[in-house]
Amino acid sequence: MNKIKVFAPATVANVACGFDIMGFALEGVGDVIVVEKTTDNKLTIAEITGTTGIPTDPEKNVSSVAIQAMLDKLGSDQGFSISIEKKVKPGSGLGSSASSSAGAVVAANHLLGNPFKKEELVEFAMEGERAASEKPHADNVAPSIIGGFTVVRGYEPLDVFTIGYPEDLYAAVIFPEVEVKTADAKKILKSQVNLSDAITQWGNVAGLTAGMITKDYDLIKRSMKDVIVEPVRSILIPCYDQVKAAALENDALGCNISGSGPSIFALARGREAADKIADAMGVEFTKADIAFDKYVSPINGKGTEIID
Amino acid sequence: MNKIKVFAPATVANVACGFDIMGFALEGVGDVIVVEKTTDNKLTIAEITGTTGIPTDPEKNVSSVAIQAMLDKLGSDQGFSISIEKKVKPGSGLGSSASSSAGAVVAANHLLGNPFKKEELVEFAMEGERAASEKPHADNVAPSIIGGFTVVRGYEPLDVFTIGYPEDLYAAVIFPEVEVKTADAKKILKSQVNLSDAITQWGNVAGLTAGMITKDYDLIKRSMKDVIVEPVRSILIPCYDQVKAAALENDALGCNISGSGPSIFALARGREAADKIADAMGVEFTKADIAFDKYVSPINGKGTEIID
Repeated sequence: MNKIKVFAPATVANVACGFDIMGFALEGVGDVIVVEKTTDNKLTIAEITGTTGIPTDPEKNVSSVAIQAMLDKLGSDQGFSISIEKKVKPGSGLGSSASSSAGAVVAANHLLGNPFKKEELVEFAMEGERAASEKPHADNVAPSIIGGFTVVRGYEPLDVFTIGYPEDLYAAVIFPEVEVKTADAKKILKSQVNLSDAITQWGNVAGLTAGMITKDYDLIKRSMKDVIVEPVRSILIPCYDQVKAAALENDALGCNISGSGPSIFALARGREAADKIADAMGVEFTKADIAFDKYVSPINGKGTEIID
Repeated sequence: MNKIKVFAPATVANVACGFDIMGFALEGVGDVIVVEKTTDNKLTIAEITGTTGIPTDPEKNVSSVAIQAMLDKLGSDQGFSISIEKKVKPGSGLGSSASSSAGAVVAANHLLGNPFKKEELVEFAMEGERAASEKPHADNVAPSIIGGFTVVRGYEPLDVFTIGYPEDLYAAVIFPEVEVKTADAKKILKSQVNLSDAITQWGNVAGLTAGMITKDYDLIKRSMKDVIVEPVRSILIPCYDQVKAAALENDALGCNISGSGPSIFALARGREAADKIADAMGVEFTKADIAFDKYVSPINGKGTEIID
């Protein structure tokens, strides 16, 4: 096999209290990546469609940087040509660059005869993330590659695991057309937090983890709280409080910022509930004359998939 | 029934990364509390054996304060006489006052015809804890009452839940005869922590929670880390580093401070492993000429029990 097409899903990271550690993959929205073996020992970005402003320089594009990290590990100089159909807009807070990194390494790994397990690919995709931001994180690339609900326990060494979740758990995601730069979202966070707030946060992390695994909706709902990041970052997102209130009034289990925003996600029990929540969230942006995209999706348990 | 005798187990709180939220109950070590109905509408501490220095003033003793909180909720002026056989030494870091509070409320609740569920008693026992320290915590009283491995998700309102754990999980606990005042242990903690450390901590909290529930020993082991409290408080405990090293060299899953110390606990797979670890920990205190007690116990799934 010399050519492969994969679908790498968009992802929600910073799930409520799980800032920097929890993420999950969405269905139906993500990047389509075509990777083809070449004979010139080079990585080339052949085409990027669906958006503008993404670097085609293989030393700057997250997909080629991620594949290069994998080739370095293998000591290989295999050449690849990469085409990217962006369906996750950069700056959405839905792991746009992560989808491109994830799809690229899964595709190249397959063309090389799968020398690595999916879990092992997370580290290479993280290197792609390094090209997009100073500090590489795994909380978007992990769910995009592996699928499901993932937890990054730590980085030294990288330790990612997946946890169970209720089968009828759905996400309602709304992406308003406003710009929140990840760099700004990072800058607004203080480097020190109150110990008492940190304890509250990790109490909720334990609750959300246990609630997901034991499929305890009530515990999930009680635990989907973020006392550290949301109070600060939500200021950068117009209508945040109204959108969140609309989600909760419509029986969302919780509603928080997706990634570093501006997308906002809610979790719900069942598709019908999630549809209703997404509609209610949309109404708030419409009132404020802000255009938006919305997605309703179960948790995507498969991660990056080969589609051709 | 007018008289009842209960056994309220000692507990390990502040389980590794789970500072202020996680605790578990031990078998075989705890307080024996006898509560008897009286006709004088008063709470009386009839006898305290096994230790000295515990207040017999019913407004200061944790057992009577805890029962009073329950009576206040019921609007009852029932009198009780309370006898306490302390087998958990105060200042051990094994939830000594919590055992007395826990046993008292379980006993009185039973004599009153069980108006409250065990989970509901935690709040009253916490009031007992208020008599012993400024800020009442639930992380010792919850496991002593309910048993098992408990998590205090939060306090507003009080939200306690239990999680599963592997059947062959054992604790090795060592209590050196040195004094660490809880007040000193609290003072030494900074009120602010690095966000990056807090993230590391809650990554481990997610890992420990998931590891316990899914019985994944390797994940438990990787997650039993405390980057916030142990580095500071362990300074107050002589030989801490040597004792911890001895536990880990003998295949402990993890080893940390129990409560606010000076007791140190390790978790292990199986009784044999826990015995070996307890012995190895003891050797270090013996070398330093420090007397100690040690306990090896499975997780006590029953909590406070009626024994007569």
